[in-house]
Amino acid sequence: MSSFEKALSGHFYAVGVGPGAPDLLTLRAARLIETADLIIAPKSSKSTESLALAAVRPLLKGQELVENVYPMERNQEATRSCWAEAADLVASRCVQRQSVVQITIGDPLIYSTSAYLVEALMDRMLPEKIHLVPGISAMQAAAALFGDPLTIQEDRLILMPATRIEDVELALGQCETLVLYKVGPRLNELVALLDRHDLLDNSRLVCHLEQAGRQVVVNPITRNLPAEVGYMSTVIVRTGHRSW
Amino acid sequence: MSSFEKALSGHFYAVGVGPGAPDLLTLRAARLIETADLIIAPKSSKSTESLALAAVRPLLKGQELVENVYPMERNQEATRSCWAEAADLVASRCVQRQSVVQITIGDPLIYSTSAYLVEALMDRMLPEKIHLVPGISAMQAAAALFGDPLTIQEDRLILMPATRIEDVELALGQCETLVLYKVGPRLNELVALLDRHDLLDNSRLVCHLEQAGRQVVVNPITRNLPAEVGYMSTVIVRTGHRSW
Repeated sequence: MSSFEKALSGHFYAVGVGPGAPDLLTLRAARLIETADLIIAPKSSKSTESLALAAVRPLLKGQELVENVYPMERNQEATRSCWAEAADLVASRCVQRQSVVQITIGDPLIYSTSAYLVEALMDRMLPEKIHLVPGISAMQAAAALFGDPLTIQEDRLILMPATRIEDVELALGQCETLVLYKVGPRLNELVALLDRHDLLDNSRLVCHLEQAGRQVVVNPITRNLPAEVGYMSTVIVRTGHRSW
Repeated sequence: MSSFEKALSGHFYAVGVGPGAPDLLTLRAARLIETADLIIAPKSSKSTESLALAAVRPLLKGQELVENVYPMERNQEATRSCWAEAADLVASRCVQRQSVVQITIGDPLIYSTSAYLVEALMDRMLPEKIHLVPGISAMQAAAALFGDPLTIQEDRLILMPATRIEDVELALGQCETLVLYKVGPRLNELVALLDRHDLLDNSRLVCHLEQAGRQVVVNPITRNLPAEVGYMSTVIVRTGHRSW
């Protein structure tokens, strides 16, 4: 049997559940979640609920559930120690022949807390018992919503966090599509930068994408943004298309 | 009802089916494919079968099927005229109140033929009847296979085609993760470039990823590559991680 037809006993799966809508996860993700003995749902210390858990609610049928609260701060030590504890739990359950799924919003391969858990597990389990299942990332769902492809033909795409505005400015000249994650804290500086480069009309923002009743869309970006634009916002800037 | 619970009559959907495995498409994609009146499957003029069609085979239950053969060449006029014909077909069926789904390998937002069909449809249908559904792109499935995240924390990712080697060389200095699509024709030049930059050990290649019995994995890349590495190969180069 493939490792992905159902969650196998003694195996761990880091599973992307997409941006938030319960129908934007893959069939593979759904099967693993439905058949897991234990589901670990990451929850930021600043959130009241796990976004990943909300996305998989229709698939929960009595599996054991553990919320793993992780620190929402740029602190390597706190981050690694939080995930070391989670890894101890996962490894001990796998030794007891349980199947364990960690769900994660978006894609576990793209700016995900799964990276730390998987890294910590590599010291505790055989690599062939650790699996990753990709999920739809916010930029894909955002581009679908806007009806505008991220890339065609020769285009170059840069994906980066909006942490350092000077790096964002450099990137504007290095690609045709610039995707910025974790935009919230730098939003005002970013809007000023895009304005300076005459790119506001080519820039779009989404927040709480595909999350029922919470989605905020700003298209194009203007100097006056709604107050409910949060940390997890995604901005897509189209700087052009490459000739082909 | 949401436009995505089932394919609505008079509506068009460009639906990503992921890299090839029948369980790597989203629940949304599966529902739309199952309920569509007409399914359009793109097939390259150089292929014997539509990869997208192979991925959705378990979902076919009598829906009408049209293969759209598109030219596998860098010719804007031939490409656009091929998709204008497909758009005429889609628009006429939608006028007859049918629901139409175009399936596409990977993600319709990332280097996809869907971009041309959607562009041509914008002249023929109301935009609110044109929908895009994201899919897992090759880089996500490749990173999952390797168990190595594409990005963490401050990392920058560049995604680009490997068409111009001098541009690939520039990009190596502008990101922590470089993802190259459509690598086939430039493979020898690319290997020489990575060798010159001492990056072969940090570079991986996959071809026919998640396609039953055809998957080729080269990890790390070496100077002697297997002969069956084809046009649609994906290469991931890790140039480092950014401090945070």
